[in-house]
Amino acid sequence: MNDLLIPLKEDSRFPMYRQIYDHIKNEIQKGKMKAGEKLPSSRLLAKNLCISRSTVDMAYDQLSAEGYIEAVPCKGYYVCQMEGLYFSTEKKVFPEKNPGQEIPAPAYRWDFALNGIAPGGFPQNTWRKLSREVLSQEGDSLFQLGDPCGEPGIRLAVAEYLHSARGVDCDPDQIIIGAGNDYLLMLLWVILGKNRKIAMENPTYLSAYYDLVHMGCQIISVGQDSQGICIEDLEKNGADTVYVMPSHQFPMGMVMPLKRRMELLKWAQDQEKRYIIEDDYDSEFRYKGQPIPALAGFDQKGCVIYLGTFSKSLAPSVRVSYMVLPPALMEAYLSLGHLFSVTVSRTDQKILELFLREGYYERHLNRMRAVYKNKHDLMVRYLKEMSHICAFSGENAGVHLVLRFCNGLTEKEGIRRAKEAGIKVYGVSDYRIRQVEKEENMVLLGYATMEEKDIEEAMKKLKEIWKI
Amino acid sequence: MNDLLIPLKEDSRFPMYRQIYDHIKNEIQKGKMKAGEKLPSSRLLAKNLCISRSTVDMAYDQLSAEGYIEAVPCKGYYVCQMEGLYFSTEKKVFPEKNPGQEIPAPAYRWDFALNGIAPGGFPQNTWRKLSREVLSQEGDSLFQLGDPCGEPGIRLAVAEYLHSARGVDCDPDQIIIGAGNDYLLMLLWVILGKNRKIAMENPTYLSAYYDLVHMGCQIISVGQDSQGICIEDLEKNGADTVYVMPSHQFPMGMVMPLKRRMELLKWAQDQEKRYIIEDDYDSEFRYKGQPIPALAGFDQKGCVIYLGTFSKSLAPSVRVSYMVLPPALMEAYLSLGHLFSVTVSRTDQKILELFLREGYYERHLNRMRAVYKNKHDLMVRYLKEMSHICAFSGENAGVHLVLRFCNGLTEKEGIRRAKEAGIKVYGVSDYRIRQVEKEENMVLLGYATMEEKDIEEAMKKLKEIWKI
Repeated sequence: MNDLLIPLKEDSRFPMYRQIYDHIKNEIQKGKMKAGEKLPSSRLLAKNLCISRSTVDMAYDQLSAEGYIEAVPCKGYYVCQMEGLYFSTEKKVFPEKNPGQEIPAPAYRWDFALNGIAPGGFPQNTWRKLSREVLSQEGDSLFQLGDPCGEPGIRLAVAEYLHSARGVDCDPDQIIIGAGNDYLLMLLWVILGKNRKIAMENPTYLSAYYDLVHMGCQIISVGQDSQGICIEDLEKNGADTVYVMPSHQFPMGMVMPLKRRMELLKWAQDQEKRYIIEDDYDSEFRYKGQPIPALAGFDQKGCVIYLGTFSKSLAPSVRVSYMVLPPALMEAYLSLGHLFSVTVSRTDQKILELFLREGYYERHLNRMRAVYKNKHDLMVRYLKEMSHICAFSGENAGVHLVLRFCNGLTEKEGIRRAKEAGIKVYGVSDYRIRQVEKEENMVLLGYATMEEKDIEEAMKKLKEIWKI
Repeated sequence: MNDLLIPLKEDSRFPMYRQIYDHIKNEIQKGKMKAGEKLPSSRLLAKNLCISRSTVDMAYDQLSAEGYIEAVPCKGYYVCQMEGLYFSTEKKVFPEKNPGQEIPAPAYRWDFALNGIAPGGFPQNTWRKLSREVLSQEGDSLFQLGDPCGEPGIRLAVAEYLHSARGVDCDPDQIIIGAGNDYLLMLLWVILGKNRKIAMENPTYLSAYYDLVHMGCQIISVGQDSQGICIEDLEKNGADTVYVMPSHQFPMGMVMPLKRRMELLKWAQDQEKRYIIEDDYDSEFRYKGQPIPALAGFDQKGCVIYLGTFSKSLAPSVRVSYMVLPPALMEAYLSLGHLFSVTVSRTDQKILELFLREGYYERHLNRMRAVYKNKHDLMVRYLKEMSHICAFSGENAGVHLVLRFCNGLTEKEGIRRAKEAGIKVYGVSDYRIRQVEKEENMVLLGYATMEEKDIEEAMKKLKEIWKI
């Protein structure tokens, strides 16, 4: 095989070495050059093709690096033996699509969505200003790998915020910054150990439920009354961990009174290594009185794992949440030796740190509280006019309300009629981890993403169509 | 208890209702007001204190919301029974600390770190420009919750990049964007199922090893030769999944030849549900010949899970990686019904999309390739002068090299001598998941974060101190 003829083209867009490489590779792929076959020496091939030897060497080097040929010392190059070659032949053409146009036209004119923030609610100008500051002023180290638990600066800012706004006294070293609660629950599962029996209310925040289920957790569904989770059920079912939202239960909206909180803390302290996961997802929005301190603020024995997020209060797209671990759990995590890398970019951490530290967050919360309070009050005004149709609860906090039909309407029928009128409302049954026997008669209305005008239009319609 | 005397102060910084609330709360906390005790009616208290009744009502509402008191219909307010009160009393003072000053003075004058990017290597100006663009021009929807797998725009841009640069033909719908490989491996563990026996080379990328171990995976350590992982070992040990880095094994630096790649693919195809996890962490940096297509580019049966990252090629602090799942695995994930929320902010996704789409990434890679090639060549030049001390491998790609002492020096002694001279080098034994019996004699030198001047200084010193 010393007569390798390669049709080189001087006007090709590919350099000579690449043409040689391509040719030989093709011959091998097509099986025309077979395993064990000897290639001409680079000197000979260069002479035959009237090119420089270094050009051939480059091609041979690449073929050899990719394993098509191998150099046998003092003998030359040989075609390699392959275990059946697999090549991607079909070249995919990606359709020219504009992601913006992909979103199908909404099936609903009005959507009382339970997710999302008020349109225009993100402090875009401030964020842009801070992001410019951070990207201009910060040194090079901002782009190197950071602290796996989050940068000291943002952890300190969060600790200060928790202290003043939520009555939680923790050390910045107890805090882990993470990209959303789903991620933090995954991480928590690693830290807590894998054989936990976790109690959750029914209904509950289903996303957290599925996070834990997909990680392989054993979930125990426990009862709930108007004050929150039933403590006796925890004992009865042998749970060692409980997931609760004392500030504003999702979806039912109740605020856990202090007495129940104390009972829950007592339950956790009654046995070693019992933990309460407190998800404080929307405590920033409380429209009457001052916010109730978080459960973690009363915990002096290290039983409460606190989860907070900027998804509701700032924007879900920013992807920053945080977790406060009791010191013993943090120590256990650190002693694993290997920590999972932080999931929030250092620029975002720095921007958010400035946002908190320079008072922007407080002002933003005040603004949003006013925006949401107006919507809340509007909702309540219309719901009061609907007392012949439904009772409501979960008011004075958060950005959603629970309606219980008192005129015989079922959840299913309520949703169906609303849909016919172009209005999306949500069933409580969607948030059950265990379906109840009797027919559901409750629906959920989120008002964060609705404009006031739309709330008025939709509520007027609901009042009409939900009549019996 | 109708004679509640509350010392109200007109000049207090707290409003009246808050003073009433604070007073009663304190009395209850101190046990001066006991469970079951009746409070004066709001009308009476208002009269006694000479203030408006609505002020008292506000205080009572808050106390009631927090569960300190409860309203008994037609009777009035009563102090609640508490299960032992737990209050955080001690107010923590956070030490005024500047995070920048926390970093201890480096113990080493030179550090051949295996992590990190070249100083000044992050395209800060472009990033700032794009970030300003994104935050100015993008509409409000950018701040609402996004696609759990990543936005369509960035997934398309990554698919196009993989097609042209890595020979991987995948649909954007096969891609999941995630904040770092640690996170993606966590997610992959959920998707792949929990009873996998995962084979890894010894030594390997230890971070991935610990990720998987902490998730509860069974890891099998398999042999390695100069071409990469030993296929027979896979069969012998009953692995059903294998984690490899064919483009540039970490830490050993070898490039897996095509023949071995084909054998590996064949192994995967020999049985149902065998998977290869291909971690292509630094394939962007290849200094000789063109890059070798990724293993995933040869996979036509959907056995290869491809992991790519911008941590090495752009910056570790940006926290963007991606995973290409075979269609069947992606389908399995989607069919779980609940997806874990994306861990990268939508702004970062959009900025990176523009960075890729508008050609910045290609130019950045060319620039960095030149920067790293200079450092690489410098390293190689000095190492060639050290042939009486050590052989080296892993060159022509990536940003680190492997040295094997040939003068009798051990890894331990080599590291010790370097340390004495103020130089940090890394032992291969640190990357073993199973220690070997004989004494190690290899060290790793990363050159990404070193300036050329420092490389010269440090290499000259190493040449001296490693002499026997």
